[in-house]
Amino acid sequence: MIECAMDKMLFEDYKKTCIQWVNAGIAQILDNQAIQQTDLLASIRYTALGAGKRIRAIFVHAACSLNQGDPNKALPAACAVELLHAYSLIHDDLPSMDNDDWRRGKPSCHKAFGEALAILTGDALQALSMQVLINSSQPHDVKLYQLKTLIEASGCQGMVAGQVMDIMQHQASAKNELQYLEKQNHAKTGALICAALSLGAYASNANQLIQKQLEQYGRAIGLAFQIQDDILDVAEKTDNMDKSHHSDYRQNKLTYVSVLGLSGARKKLSETFQKAEDTLSIFGPNARMIRQLTRYILERKY
Amino acid sequence: MIECAMDKMLFEDYKKTCIQWVNAGIAQILDNQAIQQTDLLASIRYTALGAGKRIRAIFVHAACSLNQGDPNKALPAACAVELLHAYSLIHDDLPSMDNDDWRRGKPSCHKAFGEALAILTGDALQALSMQVLINSSQPHDVKLYQLKTLIEASGCQGMVAGQVMDIMQHQASAKNELQYLEKQNHAKTGALICAALSLGAYASNANQLIQKQLEQYGRAIGLAFQIQDDILDVAEKTDNMDKSHHSDYRQNKLTYVSVLGLSGARKKLSETFQKAEDTLSIFGPNARMIRQLTRYILERKY
Repeated sequence: MIECAMDKMLFEDYKKTCIQWVNAGIAQILDNQAIQQTDLLASIRYTALGAGKRIRAIFVHAACSLNQGDPNKALPAACAVELLHAYSLIHDDLPSMDNDDWRRGKPSCHKAFGEALAILTGDALQALSMQVLINSSQPHDVKLYQLKTLIEASGCQGMVAGQVMDIMQHQASAKNELQYLEKQNHAKTGALICAALSLGAYASNANQLIQKQLEQYGRAIGLAFQIQDDILDVAEKTDNMDKSHHSDYRQNKLTYVSVLGLSGARKKLSETFQKAEDTLSIFGPNARMIRQLTRYILERKY
Repeated sequence: MIECAMDKMLFEDYKKTCIQWVNAGIAQILDNQAIQQTDLLASIRYTALGAGKRIRAIFVHAACSLNQGDPNKALPAACAVELLHAYSLIHDDLPSMDNDDWRRGKPSCHKAFGEALAILTGDALQALSMQVLINSSQPHDVKLYQLKTLIEASGCQGMVAGQVMDIMQHQASAKNELQYLEKQNHAKTGALICAALSLGAYASNANQLIQKQLEQYGRAIGLAFQIQDDILDVAEKTDNMDKSHHSDYRQNKLTYVSVLGLSGARKKLSETFQKAEDTLSIFGPNARMIRQLTRYILERKY
């Protein structure tokens, strides 16, 4: 118990260090990019250097540390993951999608810069995430592995597919709502988390067994993350919300809460969280920080 | 004169062959992608396999042929260029951008599939264009050169920057309108044409001199292409228009015609066309098809 409390304190420092680490990396990328359009640069800085939780970057760092790797080898990948995530948030928030006016405690990109520039900022961030890897000083095969991993998690088999499922939820039949939701959420959220873990582990020269175990963990924590999001969306007060004013709930979207009810969703969260914790057991004490990260995700209030 | 007429006939066949070549390549890419979302696949097919002129793919092919290269080595690059171009057209046509209801003789993507799916289709095509190169069976250094070339032409230094300049034209002062327009057009149109030429030439192992000459040609023909677009936008009847109903003109946008007047724009087109032709002179008879392509661009009516 004492060890657990200590780990929690250590994790607070660890989290801060990771956030500074990836923010510094992204700031340097933007400085080096020579983006001449001042409006574009402003909107990119606004969204890519905002107050994000940087959970995906922490996953990269933690997965690398798990196998005693040097996390700095994974910094380009961590930055690329967060840039991709930022792009997806901008496009998801657009009026024709989730129509969210708030993001990370401030007006969403299209509210701050207009819809046209917001779309283009998302486009630019997708390109930039690839450019970070292409221009990094890593071996060719490493770059191509990273690019392949990220494109698969973000394109037609990943995030984009998940968001298409999100806007097409009316196609889910009453019988397969839960199945639909799980597929949607893995594509929309889980795939990028799995990619973050895979890229972190790859930077530590992790073997196939570690990669496979982290893939399982990523699937479980990606699911837990989304269930928690859905629960927070209805159970917490707007003040505590990072994202919006109960936007998903308001729009009568298919969520774990709408399908399973609040208590059903909480039960599923608890089971999924346990599954995620169990997959970490083979790593022993090396997994202390990633275990705390798992709890942090479960306990977050926004 | 007889030779020129013969070249023109040959070019008609050449153009058809190139269009079939790239269309078959893109069709195969889509077949191999296993895109599970049927709506996403339908909107991708609708836009990526439409009735495009495929000028950028012909540039790839022609630049490769110029140096007696095997164009099939450049097929992944030609497909990637056209997929990137298709993505940019979808996003440019959106209501918050140019608000164009028509594209390539049919309803634009957002008119056919709704705004949300159109945005996501563009996002998917950007990812897919990179994926084509990453998954191709080419050496690592070739893939990375192609990725770097295309990202630079399409991201914050290329197409996206050009489109940002387009929506921010009010920032151009009366004194520097022409300069603003040239910069915008190079970023928005010229950069991808230059990239297409560079990728084609690279596939033929072209030396630096050829690459440099093609870069000059690309800048000139990219500019001529845009001036021609602006002239067609006001001078031709709607029936003949590929793109829209005089949309640029209607919206009082800054164009070569609005800045230079119709006759001034025609004069500039003629000079720029001549400059493009002149840069091809060092290639002698090898440049027959690319010379015809230049004339085809000048003479097109839509």
